[in-house]
Amino acid sequence: MMYRSSLKRTSEKIHTFSKFGDAGHGGITRYSLSDEAKQARQYYVERMTKIGATIETDDFANMYATLPGSDSNAKRIVMASHADSVKNGGNYDGILGVIGAMEVLETVAAEKIPHKHPLTAMIWTNEEGSLYPPAMMSSGVVCNAYLPKEIAKNFKEENMLASKSVLDKVSTFGEALEKSGLKGAKENRLSPDKYKAMFELHIEQGPILENAGLDVGVVTCVLGMFNTRIKFYGQAAHAGTFPMEFRQDALFAAAQVLCYLHAEIDKLGHPELVYTTGEMVVHPCVHTVIPDYVDFSIDVRHEDPEVLKKVYQIVRSLEGKEWAKCRCEVVDQWNRDTVYFDKKLVGYVKEAAEELHTKHQYINSGAGHDAQFAAYVLPTTMIFVSSEKGLSHCEPEHTSDEVCNEGISVLLNAVLKCDKE
Amino acid sequence: MMYRSSLKRTSEKIHTFSKFGDAGHGGITRYSLSDEAKQARQYYVERMTKIGATIETDDFANMYATLPGSDSNAKRIVMASHADSVKNGGNYDGILGVIGAMEVLETVAAEKIPHKHPLTAMIWTNEEGSLYPPAMMSSGVVCNAYLPKEIAKNFKEENMLASKSVLDKVSTFGEALEKSGLKGAKENRLSPDKYKAMFELHIEQGPILENAGLDVGVVTCVLGMFNTRIKFYGQAAHAGTFPMEFRQDALFAAAQVLCYLHAEIDKLGHPELVYTTGEMVVHPCVHTVIPDYVDFSIDVRHEDPEVLKKVYQIVRSLEGKEWAKCRCEVVDQWNRDTVYFDKKLVGYVKEAAEELHTKHQYINSGAGHDAQFAAYVLPTTMIFVSSEKGLSHCEPEHTSDEVCNEGISVLLNAVLKCDKE
Repeated sequence: MMYRSSLKRTSEKIHTFSKFGDAGHGGITRYSLSDEAKQARQYYVERMTKIGATIETDDFANMYATLPGSDSNAKRIVMASHADSVKNGGNYDGILGVIGAMEVLETVAAEKIPHKHPLTAMIWTNEEGSLYPPAMMSSGVVCNAYLPKEIAKNFKEENMLASKSVLDKVSTFGEALEKSGLKGAKENRLSPDKYKAMFELHIEQGPILENAGLDVGVVTCVLGMFNTRIKFYGQAAHAGTFPMEFRQDALFAAAQVLCYLHAEIDKLGHPELVYTTGEMVVHPCVHTVIPDYVDFSIDVRHEDPEVLKKVYQIVRSLEGKEWAKCRCEVVDQWNRDTVYFDKKLVGYVKEAAEELHTKHQYINSGAGHDAQFAAYVLPTTMIFVSSEKGLSHCEPEHTSDEVCNEGISVLLNAVLKCDKE
Repeated sequence: MMYRSSLKRTSEKIHTFSKFGDAGHGGITRYSLSDEAKQARQYYVERMTKIGATIETDDFANMYATLPGSDSNAKRIVMASHADSVKNGGNYDGILGVIGAMEVLETVAAEKIPHKHPLTAMIWTNEEGSLYPPAMMSSGVVCNAYLPKEIAKNFKEENMLASKSVLDKVSTFGEALEKSGLKGAKENRLSPDKYKAMFELHIEQGPILENAGLDVGVVTCVLGMFNTRIKFYGQAAHAGTFPMEFRQDALFAAAQVLCYLHAEIDKLGHPELVYTTGEMVVHPCVHTVIPDYVDFSIDVRHEDPEVLKKVYQIVRSLEGKEWAKCRCEVVDQWNRDTVYFDKKLVGYVKEAAEELHTKHQYINSGAGHDAQFAAYVLPTTMIFVSSEKGLSHCEPEHTSDEVCNEGISVLLNAVLKCDKE
């Protein structure tokens, strides 16, 4: 038997959460542990308490609202996402997964849907890392013991507590946590002993579903990636007095290499590959001075490690070479392997979408999510809903209430399938 | 008869001035009107007074040390440059022209060289505009009535006095001038009624003379130029979730256009043309976000207005076009025509260099100097000495004492030729 979540309740929650941190022009700024974030959590607690859920908080202020199941010995099935945003972000990234989890519990309660396992609607703290970097901070801490060492070392608990505010450069995440009144017990953390599976509903943040005329994505993995910095060493000189033939112009070198990389990487012929140069530093950045130093980032993502390897070889081949008489240096920053979601859970999501006649397809996640860390701890998967124009991390970020609710219905039925195991 | 300036006195002055603002690693930071600048002027006053020169100061703190000539009705011949530096600049840019002027007066006094016209060694205030922009501030004010309107409007006296410190963003040039104790009478300003001709000795700031194995450049003009800003409007999106085919990457557009401009401009085949992109702005400049806005400067210089026009047409042709699906906008910033120096004075410099057997060639100035504004007021010219590796506006800026003195000897004899008119 298939169930449907309530469009009315879903709309009500989307509308209400959009007021906590309302930036005045359609979007929100809701940093983790801020007053706005506390208002959002208060609303969550009120609604969850109303349907009889028990509220727990762990030592990183992650919150868990749990509705008991018929088997008091069964592990919990958790649906989780985050309630914080980037600066001038939208009303869907993160919070939609919390709304979806809440709506599943409310539907189960309202329609008295029988279920064996306790069902938990969870909020992860500080997924964006907007005020206190890094992103995915508390899932990185909670899942730390299960993560590959190379990743785990970036999320050491003591370093996270010491993370400084990007605004005042002084106050720390740890201090904000103490002051928040939201700090709970460490034993409440998500763990494989107590939790059976995790689902995360999220907006796609890309245009693939919309372009295909679909509402829901059955997510199979989070893409592997690497991030590298490419540096150019030139010679500063006066723009008016230094002949072209003797110049070592680091910016011209960088522009040539950026075009070269696009040409070489595109030749590989992998349409699903994405690569991005988002950051560039130009020194001294004065219009009358030939730049003596430039560096730029390159972020490359693909599911297949062999494809990533080919791109990496193109990037590495620049090392030590000269472009426009400037020496080029390639510095690795970080990388991660593709994280595959649990096949059985992916199957439940696929079946639920089919049975609901939801327009859907398989998709991968190019962005990082708390679910990718949880996937190392317990069976985990994700569900995407389409993003209008593919926009996210900005105020125009939008998905209709109907499409959001469609995704929530898929989540509800996938969870109930998992419950039947 | 040919005269030679004193290497000993020249070295002494180079060495002593290098202590006023010594930044501790070979160069100086000596902002106009600073304590260090006042020390330098004090030393100038001491040496000039010692040889019997009269000191005058005008209302922009430009200083004039004048040695009388045999004809009390004759106009003065002035040798002028500036004593201020950029941040962490070198020991030659500007100050060498002051040292040269002082040395000419000292040689004339020491060797009792007969001369008809009064000879003036002058210091221009705030040529670099390092602390209070713009560059060439006080020559822009003093010569204002004679400058082309398009240039004159950038140097209105009231705006210059209101120019704010780039450090504290509050204090103004006018306040610094009042506090300095260096403000004199407006009637002391350089004017064609009182001055017959101006010479400015300066380092080349480029590698042309050194590469040709020469010591001195006979400067014929300051190059015409234009400065334009090229802007690209893209669409920000997530680096991991947005397929390549739908992207509007403003940085990739900018890199392509920079390479395109180099290719197209180089095709014109003018080896003396110089063009520079020194400044680039990338927004939002985050490694996980596709840039939605990029702009860069392009500064183009050449003697021939027809060549500048051809380059300008290439740049303007970008307007409204799309690159990497990003709209391109071209915004003119400013331009100036080539300023030719006085043919008779250029001839004196050339003759002096030949008669002294100084290794020399004709050269143009790609950089701007106070002399280019003075050239609108009275017959003016410049003399360059070679710059090691073409470096300037940095601490390693260097020219040997011998080459400096060679340039000063050329200055001395050119001035004496002018005196005989």
